Amino acid sequence: MRQPDDEDSSAPPTWELQSSEPRNEYVSFRTRHDRVRSPIDGSEHGFDIVESADAVTVIATTPAGDFVMIEQFRHGTRSVVLEFPGGILDPGEEPIPSGLRELREETGFAGRNAELVGTLELNPAFQSTRIHLVRIQDAERVDSKDLDESEDTRVRLLSLPEVVQGIRDGTFDTAVALAALALHLWREADLGDAPW
Amino acid sequence: MRQPDDEDSSAPPTWELQSSEPRNEYVSFRTRHDRVRSPIDGSEHGFDIVESADAVTVIATTPAGDFVMIEQFRHGTRSVVLEFPGGILDPGEEPIPSGLRELREETGFAGRNAELVGTLELNPAFQSTRIHLVRIQDAERVDSKDLDESEDTRVRLLSLPEVVQGIRDGTFDTAVALAALALHLWREADLGDAPW
Repeated sequence: MRQPDDEDSSAPPTWELQSSEPRNEYVSFRTRHDRVRSPIDGSEHGFDIVESADAVTVIATTPAGDFVMIEQFRHGTRSVVLEFPGGILDPGEEPIPSGLRELREETGFAGRNAELVGTLELNPAFQSTRIHLVRIQDAERVDSKDLDESEDTRVRLLSLPEVVQGIRDGTFDTAVALAALALHLWREADLGDAPW
Repeated sequence: MRQPDDEDSSAPPTWELQSSEPRNEYVSFRTRHDRVRSPIDGSEHGFDIVESADAVTVIATTPAGDFVMIEQFRHGTRSVVLEFPGGILDPGEEPIPSGLRELREETGFAGRNAELVGTLELNPAFQSTRIHLVRIQDAERVDSKDLDESEDTRVRLLSLPEVVQGIRDGTFDTAVALAALALHLWREADLGDAPW
């Protein structure tokens, strides 16, 4: 990591928190208002933050190497979205049990060798939510889905080339899912052989 | 794309919108409450949605092939974050001019061959925001930064192996930035030579 000659090489300093007040409660998130002091000129600034529970996203692969994915109607975009299974952590729940639970509920699949690959930040600009990536191998259908009445998932099995084609044609386009796939693939691949 | 034998191959149906009401206004976003009808059993459900302006993220590379990135303190996570430059579109602004503007303001860099690579969904679960990826080549420092008083960016230049190392050690971990990098690399790479 380098910087231009006239750029400060030290990390930018913290903006000291003056106060933090809860604002409103919503179905899946809440808001708060932070007052912070600038380390540059001492001026005070206000920022509104969206807080939601940390979540898990699950990259599960079948014995044939397909990814276990879901299509579902999403209310933020009001559109059908192709994603990896996942959801918010129950209170006190750890990422790996949460990933196994969400995979089972949303797809009816179970597998083995569940592991935590890493953690993503959803949107540090004004959100505190973190997304844990859990990887599960040898996933197979073991049961029916167990959805609540506000969920309607359709299980889809895609090879890696099909997923990459979906990125290229725009049908696979959520930030968390693409980031999870990148983390999954680049965590261990030998990049000396990469095609870029 | 395939599905288990007992899974419906058709796309999940739309949840019809019954009403949509604005709720609260905040510094960088607003909230609304949607009432929707389930296509499965006709039941009514309420969802709160966070709306924020569409944004742009910029992958700019130098003549030497380094990525032009920034370190900045972010108020959602209250931590220093390594990201690509970017920000929200001004009213009526298109993604490419927005990307050129944000790159210039946040880093002092300018380049050429600016192009729109694709668009990401931030968080379809309860947000409507889209992030446009703009790619800029041959970026070089042409001016000083032009920050407002709530911004403090430090420009960093990283090679692709350094970025991938950052993914591996967790110092480069925001969903939008990893997704943007994946979209940038996988849009055109010959995946027949990929190391997975």
